[in-house]
Amino acid sequence: MAPAVNNKLTGLVAATFTPFTTQGEINLSEIGPYIDYLKEKQGVNSIFVNGTTGESMSLSVAERRDLAEEWCRKAKGKMDQVIVHVGCMSLKDSQELARHAAQIGADGIAVISPSFFKPSTADALRTFLHEVSSVAPNLPFFYYHIPSVTGVNILARDILEDVWELIPSFKGVKFSGSDLMDFGQCVSYCQTHWSVLYGVDEQLLAALVMGADGAVGSTYNYLGCHASELMSAFEKGNIVQARTIQFKMQELLSYAKKLGFDLGVNKQLMNELSGLCLGPPRLPVMQCPMSEALTIAKKYRSLFTEC
Amino acid sequence: MAPAVNNKLTGLVAATFTPFTTQGEINLSEIGPYIDYLKEKQGVNSIFVNGTTGESMSLSVAERRDLAEEWCRKAKGKMDQVIVHVGCMSLKDSQELARHAAQIGADGIAVISPSFFKPSTADALRTFLHEVSSVAPNLPFFYYHIPSVTGVNILARDILEDVWELIPSFKGVKFSGSDLMDFGQCVSYCQTHWSVLYGVDEQLLAALVMGADGAVGSTYNYLGCHASELMSAFEKGNIVQARTIQFKMQELLSYAKKLGFDLGVNKQLMNELSGLCLGPPRLPVMQCPMSEALTIAKKYRSLFTEC
Amino acid sequence: MAPAVNNKLTGLVAATFTPFTTQGEINLSEIGPYIDYLKEKQGVNSIFVNGTTGESMSLSVAERRDLAEEWCRKAKGKMDQVIVHVGCMSLKDSQELARHAAQIGADGIAVISPSFFKPSTADALRTFLHEVSSVAPNLPFFYYHIPSVTGVNILARDILEDVWELIPSFKGVKFSGSDLMDFGQCVSYCQTHWSVLYGVDEQLLAALVMGADGAVGSTYNYLGCHASELMSAFEKGNIVQARTIQFKMQELLSYAKKLGFDLGVNKQLMNELSGLCLGPPRLPVMQCPMSEALTIAKKYRSLFTEC
Amino acid sequence: MAPAVNNKLTGLVAATFTPFTTQGEINLSEIGPYIDYLKEKQGVNSIFVNGTTGESMSLSVAERRDLAEEWCRKAKGKMDQVIVHVGCMSLKDSQELARHAAQIGADGIAVISPSFFKPSTADALRTFLHEVSSVAPNLPFFYYHIPSVTGVNILARDILEDVWELIPSFKGVKFSGSDLMDFGQCVSYCQTHWSVLYGVDEQLLAALVMGADGAVGSTYNYLGCHASELMSAFEKGNIVQARTIQFKMQELLSYAKKLGFDLGVNKQLMNELSGLCLGPPRLPVMQCPMSEALTIAKKYRSLFTEC
Repeated sequence: MAPAVNNKLTGLVAATFTPFTTQGEINLSEIGPYIDYLKEKQGVNSIFVNGTTGESMSLSVAERRDLAEEWCRKAKGKMDQVIVHVGCMSLKDSQELARHAAQIGADGIAVISPSFFKPSTADALRTFLHEVSSVAPNLPFFYYHIPSVTGVNILARDILEDVWELIPSFKGVKFSGSDLMDFGQCVSYCQTHWSVLYGVDEQLLAALVMGADGAVGSTYNYLGCHASELMSAFEKGNIVQARTIQFKMQELLSYAKKLGFDLGVNKQLMNELSGLCLGPPRLPVMQCPMSEALTIAKKYRSLFTEC
Repeated sequence: MAPAVNNKLTGLVAATFTPFTTQGEINLSEIGPYIDYLKEKQGVNSIFVNGTTGESMSLSVAERRDLAEEWCRKAKGKMDQVIVHVGCMSLKDSQELARHAAQIGADGIAVISPSFFKPSTADALRTFLHEVSSVAPNLPFFYYHIPSVTGVNILARDILEDVWELIPSFKGVKFSGSDLMDFGQCVSYCQTHWSVLYGVDEQLLAALVMGADGAVGSTYNYLGCHASELMSAFEKGNIVQARTIQFKMQELLSYAKKLGFDLGVNKQLMNELSGLCLGPPRLPVMQCPMSEALTIAKKYRSLFTEC
Repeated sequence: MAPAVNNKLTGLVAATFTPFTTQGEINLSEIGPYIDYLKEKQGVNSIFVNGTTGESMSLSVAERRDLAEEWCRKAKGKMDQVIVHVGCMSLKDSQELARHAAQIGADGIAVISPSFFKPSTADALRTFLHEVSSVAPNLPFFYYHIPSVTGVNILARDILEDVWELIPSFKGVKFSGSDLMDFGQCVSYCQTHWSVLYGVDEQLLAALVMGADGAVGSTYNYLGCHASELMSAFEKGNIVQARTIQFKMQELLSYAKKLGFDLGVNKQLMNELSGLCLGPPRLPVMQCPMSEALTIAKKYRSLFTEC
Repeated sequence: MAPAVNNKLTGLVAATFTPFTTQGEINLSEIGPYIDYLKEKQGVNSIFVNGTTGESMSLSVAERRDLAEEWCRKAKGKMDQVIVHVGCMSLKDSQELARHAAQIGADGIAVISPSFFKPSTADALRTFLHEVSSVAPNLPFFYYHIPSVTGVNILARDILEDVWELIPSFKGVKFSGSDLMDFGQCVSYCQTHWSVLYGVDEQLLAALVMGADGAVGSTYNYLGCHASELMSAFEKGNIVQARTIQFKMQELLSYAKKLGFDLGVNKQLMNELSGLCLGPPRLPVMQCPMSEALTIAKKYRSLFTEC
């Protein structure tokens, strides 16, 4: 992997699924093929591992370590950057994973807000983030903002306030929310070498126009090439083309949502579209009936050509 | 006013405040000057009256009739279009106002979802909207979508499904929400002579890139010329300039929100910036302390030149 | 009706449905039989009219006046008290209805919080309530607290603070919420001649043990005699018997909720159980399929003997 | 400890705080004195450890093991029952802790719903609970229901449906919610050797009248003797006395809530009232200013005599 400290993270980043065996144990052997698939079929050059899509909160700390290690090892020479999500409900666990990420040569770490006990103020959350970053002070640090999942309604912009003093390794935000005033204020405030990455795939174009540096999401696992096309159309000023692609992504995801789109369905859809064997999700996420994934895959194929 | 049936509503639309006397009665005499101010100072050519900004739900039906009539009368020859919001909790009241709007020559009517009893399905809301439209079948009809206020979480796109069969006078949506997948799906589905207007001013640019035909909002009462500049920069492909203006709007509104920005503050800010005498809001909206409006006005002046 | 000013409102109060014709117009002729049914079959001696169950927010002001007048006229000599709910989104409308209630000899008025514009503080809501009460200063005044419907999360106890200074005619609270700390604090703070009435029928027993003076609810339209039995069992210290009845009420309502229990279903169930012709609900509440009401009625009959 | 399998858990159960050193490490040495305090000063005979009050989600699995072990060891011969909460976001971690609880001689285990990934149906949650119970099949199993914290709005009653077939070791519910219809339906459905324990301390009396077998809560750490008095007054049929105590508890907790009552304040209040050294909370819960705890302690002393 490239020396991340000098490398601004941009473009498309796939939030990876965690491969499981059919018995529900983590399946490290599928990581190599997964990386090849992302690079070769989807044109994706950076990954965000052990995040929400990766079911990190359903993993033990030991499993997260093993997975992170394998992702970093197999990505070497293939991916530009591997960002390891180390957020946990417990500060202790996050710190352990942050230290570990530094040892295994991750390009950066990301931390979500704890959500069982919710920080009551921006200051509480900032202090939590600081405590994690401080055990891996040389690793680029990203704040992972996803209020609809955490229920923590603190503005991302309030986390950023003078954050370089608190977290000198700060490098950006993965912003998975629909409040684009907050998002715009983050873009406006950010230093040029930071990255503001957007995480609501179905409205990526809106974030691009607000100044997003890139995108991190689960659908880029199978919509990577199309999302890349959207991004380059936008960069070239071809709004109509970018919008057309975005609308197709929306049509797919609207369709899936009507059928009940959750992480279990998403994972099964990925299995179907990629040919990889990522297995079922882990409880409390339920495995979806194959028919449901097939129905969505059919819709996918009616909208998109193969990458 | 122009013959609206053939005229697609586009561009900037100000959602007007309702002028009150200091005693809290509606003040029709301020409507003429208000229209002149919007046209001359803000470059706004269409208005949306008796909506949320207009405190319609705090008005009696008789007051809404008087106001609508005066808005239409004074706008004649000055404004392109006057859209009268006729949505009420009671279908009966909405129908009365819709009939009245037809009589006074409004260019269109808009209807919000009832929100005390919330429609439980798209079908229930569609039937409600149909019943209102049917008493004024020749008036262009707009659905007013604002889920954060109504608490009605029905997708706008689901309202649009084959809506021309149900409401032949259907002409568009005022979409005041942050779900841009739903918004994009509305744009994608809409007929070309319909208007998809966006109503979250602080992220207007995001809606433009998704294909909005225009915008309806309260801040265009005092940010009209700047929002127009944003829109034309976007149309010319000057994203950076459009973004710069959007960020300044966001900075103003973020600042106001930290101080506690509600309709009472917004109205007082408008009084301060416009020089009009729109009076206090009506209960349960409380009048804001003058100092608060002045502080925000000062911020406004630090960010924007006068229109 | 008895001189309400000296009469504390206690016991069971039915929140009445509004009778409609099959064409959806208000049907005053059914009010007389409805009152006889409540008194003779259900043993209910007081009514709360034009409330949530009465679909007041779906009625015009004129309809509410006509209904209130007929309820008061027909209740004379039969009911102990008729409380007319006069709460509206618009203060003007509420004041008109409050004045009218005084003219027609209502025993009291009740006011809900406006919920389109939500009061931002207890003070804002208190001021609103004060403005309504002040036009009918001799009518006993009740605050109607139902946060799950209004979305106004102001503690009822905060409304009560020194309320006699603000509203000298204050007589009590209809508390339709599940926060029994707030409820208990209301009971604890209330003057002895005030009434604290509970409005979540399925957990009435919990409110009784906390000191409720009575209950107002829609299910007392058809569970009146059983709820009376529950209340007298509780008063006699027969907790086990009271609980047994409460559990049966819960079983009925849980069952109904699983099938989708809303006001439309509730009204149709009432039609089926009472034999009255109260008609369909008004939009946006949808009429329920007869089969659904019949299924619930069957459950009712399996649990309860006829009153 | 008594042989729990035959012992129904009833009465008052303290949800214990986790003792930390001032440096934020777990402090096992304070557990012995804590147990003595609970037994001698508060008259509490059972404890629920590593639950919400115990900040379990902020602990590592290793810390939770160490704590559980020490609680069980020190409680031997002093407490009737020690219930170890083993719920985690990760099924793997929960299973590890359940196995461990069996080894250390816990009297029972309790499991909360995972809340980062929320089970989408009762069936998903039931399957999760089953998977935990199955690794410690001889340990009495309690479902811990606290929807306001988890955001999982599945009825507890739906978890209970035929639960003995799924979890033969099932012994009851810790119900920390305000939906007393659901609570009542649990009581009504439960087998006689199961326990339905209530967890919203400020409305305990409401649960008792609905048939609660006991109570689990954090305030019983310092209100234990008073809550016991409430419970025995209720059992003797002295509702007025029980209500008087409940109202004092409500007055204290209302007062604390106005000041901003969270786990950090609660823990500091406990330090002040008990004289124990339980230390600060762990991030993201912030330590409260001493003055705030002292203010609440003063209120406590104005309402209650020392136990």
